[in-house]
Amino acid sequence: MNKKAVVIASGGIDSSTLLYKSVKDGYDVFALTFNYGQKHKREIEYARDVCKSLNISHKIIDLSSLKEVFSGSALTDSNIDIPEVPAETPHYDTLKTTIVPNRNSIFLSIAIAYAVSIDANYVFFGAHQSDRGVYPDCRLEFIESFEHSERLANDKPDLRILAPFVELEKSQIVTLGAELGVPYQLTWSCYRGEDIHCGVCSSCRERKRAFSQSGVHDPTDYER
Amino acid sequence: MNKKAVVIASGGIDSSTLLYKSVKDGYDVFALTFNYGQKHKREIEYARDVCKSLNISHKIIDLSSLKEVFSGSALTDSNIDIPEVPAETPHYDTLKTTIVPNRNSIFLSIAIAYAVSIDANYVFFGAHQSDRGVYPDCRLEFIESFEHSERLANDKPDLRILAPFVELEKSQIVTLGAELGVPYQLTWSCYRGEDIHCGVCSSCRERKRAFSQSGVHDPTDYER
Repeated sequence: MNKKAVVIASGGIDSSTLLYKSVKDGYDVFALTFNYGQKHKREIEYARDVCKSLNISHKIIDLSSLKEVFSGSALTDSNIDIPEVPAETPHYDTLKTTIVPNRNSIFLSIAIAYAVSIDANYVFFGAHQSDRGVYPDCRLEFIESFEHSERLANDKPDLRILAPFVELEKSQIVTLGAELGVPYQLTWSCYRGEDIHCGVCSSCRERKRAFSQSGVHDPTDYER
Repeated sequence: MNKKAVVIASGGIDSSTLLYKSVKDGYDVFALTFNYGQKHKREIEYARDVCKSLNISHKIIDLSSLKEVFSGSALTDSNIDIPEVPAETPHYDTLKTTIVPNRNSIFLSIAIAYAVSIDANYVFFGAHQSDRGVYPDCRLEFIESFEHSERLANDKPDLRILAPFVELEKSQIVTLGAELGVPYQLTWSCYRGEDIHCGVCSSCRERKRAFSQSGVHDPTDYER
């Protein structure tokens, strides 16, 4: 069985660490990044730079037409502000506005199409433990069910869809990434996608917390 | 429970009949058509015309960037000819070249994102009995598994993904469509996508056979 793996790369901490881990683990990595109309589309350039730092294949797929079907998500809808959240206990209902409907199914389906095309058996993505409260498409039960569905869809019983960080907290991912030499200055988290990280959206809050809890140096400039 | 339904419309016989059936059955139909880099992208105009004939909502989603990940399919790859098949017994290996990797998962995932966005509980698509030999993503076991996965992905236990024609032969679909008054002159099947139907690709062969077996008048001009 070959070790080709399609890895979904968002330019953030989790998927960038996953790229480094996958290369370290000996996979032949094909990275895939999506422009889905996100306000923080500058994350795409960061994904590109991380892939360049590893000298791996990287494709950027334009799904910006999906703004026609997505509505109600603060990440894509210009009528809804990216919420500012407090440092410690973000409110569940506030975080729910950052759900993009069915995003992981869409991304994984395309990643699997790519895997089938290049005869790869592995698709990896960076869902982690802290995602599972708010994002149902980051939960292990979804991932396992989806793997089963996609094996059927493609008559490909060897297909594996894996989220190796699904049991890890973000701070543990940063600890691992520091060991792997992930250049975190080349990663982007902020949902607002302005010149520097805002520091107060839920994604910035998580980024700050992950560095702080892990004790790894945070190379990020935050506005607040 | 509302009766909003997202229906995937390709401009062909099956999905056009499904649109008519869904409207007849009282669903509030939101049609969705994909440009995925198919050679026969003129089917999209046919889908639009069928939706106009029903006066229903219709969105066209541009996924042409997917040509970056699809390879090896005669439907999208300019290096592979659409195969000509004999009238009666198309060869399985020949038909396999018309598989587009993971197409239905991608289309359904996006249709479900749309359903979640508009609070629809139903997603319909036109897979039918004659598809199941060649296309694993048209089989009932895939559809049922995928429905389960997508309920998990969206915390939406009421979501239904249905292929109402999955047990019907194409000729039975045409018989039903004739009763429903489907304007088959506004539908397109040919994979080659030239000015008129070629008459000899697998999709034209199936179209001819469905009309001939059902005894319904075939309004199509075929080149051969």
